[in-house]
Amino acid sequence: MSAVPKDLAVSARLADEMREPFPNSSKIHVGGSRDDIRVPMREVAQSNTPATFGVEKNPPITIYDCSGPYTDPAAAIDLRAGLPALRAAWIAERGDTERLADFSSEFGRERHADNALTHLRFPEPPKPLRAKAGANLSQMHYARQGIVTPEMEFVAIRENARIDEIRDSRLLRRHPGEGFGANIPERVTPEFVRDEIAAGRAIIPNNVNHPESEPMIIGRNFRVKINANMGTSAVTSSIAEEVEKMVWAARWGGDTIMDLSTGKHIHETREWIIRNAPVPVGTVPIYQALEKVDGKAEDLTWEMFRDTLIEQAEQGVDYFTIHAGVRLPYVPMTVNRITGIVSRGGSIMAKWCLAHHTESFLYTHFEDICEIMKAYDVAFSLGDGLRPGCIADANDEAQMAELRTLGELTKIAWAHDVQVMIEGPGHVPMQRIKENMEAELEDCHEAPFYTLGPLTTDIAPGYDHITSGIGAAQIGWYGTAMLCYVTPKEHLGLPNKDDVREGIITYKIAAHAADLAKGHPGAQIRDNALSKARFEFRWEDQFNLGLDPMKARGFHDETLPKDSAKVAHFCSMCGPKFCSMRISQEVREFAHDRGIHTVEDAIEAGMEEKAEEFREGGSRIYQ
Amino acid sequence: MSAVPKDLAVSARLADEMREPFPNSSKIHVGGSRDDIRVPMREVAQSNTPATFGVEKNPPITIYDCSGPYTDPAAAIDLRAGLPALRAAWIAERGDTERLADFSSEFGRERHADNALTHLRFPEPPKPLRAKAGANLSQMHYARQGIVTPEMEFVAIRENARIDEIRDSRLLRRHPGEGFGANIPERVTPEFVRDEIAAGRAIIPNNVNHPESEPMIIGRNFRVKINANMGTSAVTSSIAEEVEKMVWAARWGGDTIMDLSTGKHIHETREWIIRNAPVPVGTVPIYQALEKVDGKAEDLTWEMFRDTLIEQAEQGVDYFTIHAGVRLPYVPMTVNRITGIVSRGGSIMAKWCLAHHTESFLYTHFEDICEIMKAYDVAFSLGDGLRPGCIADANDEAQMAELRTLGELTKIAWAHDVQVMIEGPGHVPMQRIKENMEAELEDCHEAPFYTLGPLTTDIAPGYDHITSGIGAAQIGWYGTAMLCYVTPKEHLGLPNKDDVREGIITYKIAAHAADLAKGHPGAQIRDNALSKARFEFRWEDQFNLGLDPMKARGFHDETLPKDSAKVAHFCSMCGPKFCSMRISQEVREFAHDRGIHTVEDAIEAGMEEKAEEFREGGSRIYQ
Repeated sequence: MSAVPKDLAVSARLADEMREPFPNSSKIHVGGSRDDIRVPMREVAQSNTPATFGVEKNPPITIYDCSGPYTDPAAAIDLRAGLPALRAAWIAERGDTERLADFSSEFGRERHADNALTHLRFPEPPKPLRAKAGANLSQMHYARQGIVTPEMEFVAIRENARIDEIRDSRLLRRHPGEGFGANIPERVTPEFVRDEIAAGRAIIPNNVNHPESEPMIIGRNFRVKINANMGTSAVTSSIAEEVEKMVWAARWGGDTIMDLSTGKHIHETREWIIRNAPVPVGTVPIYQALEKVDGKAEDLTWEMFRDTLIEQAEQGVDYFTIHAGVRLPYVPMTVNRITGIVSRGGSIMAKWCLAHHTESFLYTHFEDICEIMKAYDVAFSLGDGLRPGCIADANDEAQMAELRTLGELTKIAWAHDVQVMIEGPGHVPMQRIKENMEAELEDCHEAPFYTLGPLTTDIAPGYDHITSGIGAAQIGWYGTAMLCYVTPKEHLGLPNKDDVREGIITYKIAAHAADLAKGHPGAQIRDNALSKARFEFRWEDQFNLGLDPMKARGFHDETLPKDSAKVAHFCSMCGPKFCSMRISQEVREFAHDRGIHTVEDAIEAGMEEKAEEFREGGSRIYQ
Repeated sequence: MSAVPKDLAVSARLADEMREPFPNSSKIHVGGSRDDIRVPMREVAQSNTPATFGVEKNPPITIYDCSGPYTDPAAAIDLRAGLPALRAAWIAERGDTERLADFSSEFGRERHADNALTHLRFPEPPKPLRAKAGANLSQMHYARQGIVTPEMEFVAIRENARIDEIRDSRLLRRHPGEGFGANIPERVTPEFVRDEIAAGRAIIPNNVNHPESEPMIIGRNFRVKINANMGTSAVTSSIAEEVEKMVWAARWGGDTIMDLSTGKHIHETREWIIRNAPVPVGTVPIYQALEKVDGKAEDLTWEMFRDTLIEQAEQGVDYFTIHAGVRLPYVPMTVNRITGIVSRGGSIMAKWCLAHHTESFLYTHFEDICEIMKAYDVAFSLGDGLRPGCIADANDEAQMAELRTLGELTKIAWAHDVQVMIEGPGHVPMQRIKENMEAELEDCHEAPFYTLGPLTTDIAPGYDHITSGIGAAQIGWYGTAMLCYVTPKEHLGLPNKDDVREGIITYKIAAHAADLAKGHPGAQIRDNALSKARFEFRWEDQFNLGLDPMKARGFHDETLPKDSAKVAHFCSMCGPKFCSMRISQEVREFAHDRGIHTVEDAIEAGMEEKAEEFREGGSRIYQ
């Protein structure tokens, strides 16, 4: 082996646990209008209903799948080569890009020319694509011209998750939703996707320099998505670990990831992540800009920030968090807060504004930023630099003033056909969460909201995935399009792989609970299938249909490890004599034997007297 | 040692981890109107604010504490002797009880006479107290006569948690609450407690045969409480383990526990638990009744059920779950459900009703049950035997029909001055949770609601503490008075100690988030104190004010184990250069140096131009 420190070397191969398919699951690809639209999904096979419950074949269940080729045993994975460029042909055939001979950013060129970095650099990074002069590559731009791109068709197929293949009416049972003004269609069509993007209500983060990514959509009329943060810091982490975390995050259901690296080798870490990421990648470019000035916020300049944006856009970052709403006059509004400014980007810009006593360069150069975004199709994630860092500071004037500014900036971005989402809090008590959503929809003209939690209390460090999962489920229900996860390590340390998994599952729960509450047509299928399996003691199916089959199986094994227990008609909670599910089945059989299927049948079957009494309303309850 | 199997022996001593006080915390006792009213609370000392943030003394924070004497180093604990009879004098001085010469229940007498059980029996169980002929021992009965009992005064002091000792206005900051009709007073008085109990809106579960318990109140105008389930099953668990789990549950914040044992030695297990429980203990008597007929539901009779109620009431059970709302005509309504009847008690009674084709004896003998309840002051927890077991079955006609019956039964119990709470679901999608609360308030005349979750999706076995914590926080906010916890093992196995802790912390979060949302006057103090500590890098204070200081510290140690890191002005997330908290403090100092404390100050300090621009509303955002 070479002298490369182990924690910097990225090997070609991933550990088995990162690649093994989910149990009883296969990767399928659903075709579109052209041969090269093949939308990946996961199909979970089910066993038959056992004889006790009346033998019955149970259909496979299709699950929205963002794990990428990693869970496909047929895919050859080589981290040192990166993923195939799935979208390359779609981009090329639009004819509005050109491949550059070299990187446009000064910093990017320097890093690539630095031989001292060769040992830790992704081998042969592709040369960047950029819009031809005058062209605009954003999906919003195409949508506004009435064009349905392959990306739009891809996400339409993806969102439907083969709902039309379900024939069993029991699986299609669903409650009426409460969408608070959302407009979720029964089936997503490519045209609906186009219209939502054109209106600014949804985005497809989709940099032409990240053709490896599988298109996905963020908007409140689609499935609620989740983001997983990761990244090195000066104190801990390595490139190889971050690449692993990205694969791991996508495996468990992270729809996008953000690389928040702040340590050494930010550029190189990002390259490794993007080349191997099947999901869109977001960043906060000001973090890297600050590294370049050795942490002195006051030394930041527009010129070097601009160079950083281009550097990252040419690597393929799909969305940029830009804290352009942190304006000089808002900074004093935070002085009496309990926790001041807790956004790193926000505090950096606040410090810059105060030091120079002038307006933020992100704000004054906003249109210049738009020009860069549209040349690569990078989406804005307008950062909430003044978000509350504790319950006491929630919904205060600083936060709300910034939100209104983000709304103004949205209009400007849209004038450039640049895609936008809006970042939201943070820490908010439950009774004040809805205000946030309503203010965002109004002030930001229905641009997709992307919130961090919110945490509904401050008193549980070590459990902030839960304090925030509660808020995330609610704000997702109210209309937030993407939920940024919080891990158990929030406020305490950098998340490891276990924390990433725990954070993601918590947020998949929140997002799915929100889909159910909004009345998403396909959401309840999985609940229904899993619950039917549970009732019929199909333990393996119950595990496999869950968000984390391995953990569910492991918990069951703790008390009943034998294989026979996986088909037993009882469990360790009640033991064999007391099972309510079993008794319930006996009730069902009893009713069935007497031809009782409805309340009316019950009355006919000889329950007239009792039922009559019930129907009277029962003010007199004793005979 | 004797030949007693290890898992049956209860030793006098608890493991250190069950007894060590929480870090930097001391047990205090707040006095009442008489010497023997001494309400236990936990006081968390704080360190001073470090110089960077302006040296300042931070007051101790008082925390509602249900851990009992176990966390008091001054208390001598002997599990084989049980806890001191805290309430014995209050009960005795009312003069309405008599001590019986022997147990009234046949089964109880048999068990106590059985020498084969001596080795596993609690030594010398006390002989039971019972109401003198014609007396009614319930707190509701006293309340309705206008009497303020010591128990009522105790809970009033407890609920206030020394809020009046807080002088720092920053700690008292709070958001306006949304209580959906709750009527939470600024300070709880003994008279308010009395009136709420008299009206049936709150209960103090408080069996005269469990004088060891510290009084607590369940009602929507008080702090939201949580319950922790435990208990042996035929498949697993031992008496010693269950006693440990009870102490463990109280330690982490379980306000009540339910002993759901279904295996051997139910009677003996319960005795051990009650004698050592500082919190009220609930049970589901039908489980034991079913054991007595060897699991054959159809063999249950009113007479043996009655004997079971008396047996348990004389041991000191504080509330009984009684599934008297599962009526014969409702059973067929469950036939087309996906998961039928999932309540064990509900399915037992459904089977009995069908087998005998007659009305449930719990329903027909309801007034007889009330007579027993008032002779010991056992509260009803009217069971929701027909609660939904999956999302699809939520809020259906079976569930709602049963709820209306529970409302009728409430009126009957109240006619006997017997305390009542109402059990609720279960599995409910978010948009249909509020209906449950509203229906309960209306149908059950504002009796306290006590819900299991609800789980907001079925797809996460292994994480149902989270799927249900989301629902619990919401229904707590809407008005549920007590939340029954769900552990990560739900649906998969019996919880171990780790699961109990995880379930309880999750539910403390849900209950506290609900208190904040309802606008409870004292709730936000702890959030404010913790967040101030966080901002000032008082890491130890941050850990200690949290729900689980040990876990928070452990997480911090994973990346920064050195003691010096506990006073460092950065953490592993961002490293020393990037800390937003530190930058935020610089912003504050910058403002302070210029005398800027408010937005108005900022304007005077020379920000006129920028601020003016902001005040104009900023439609024109570029100069």
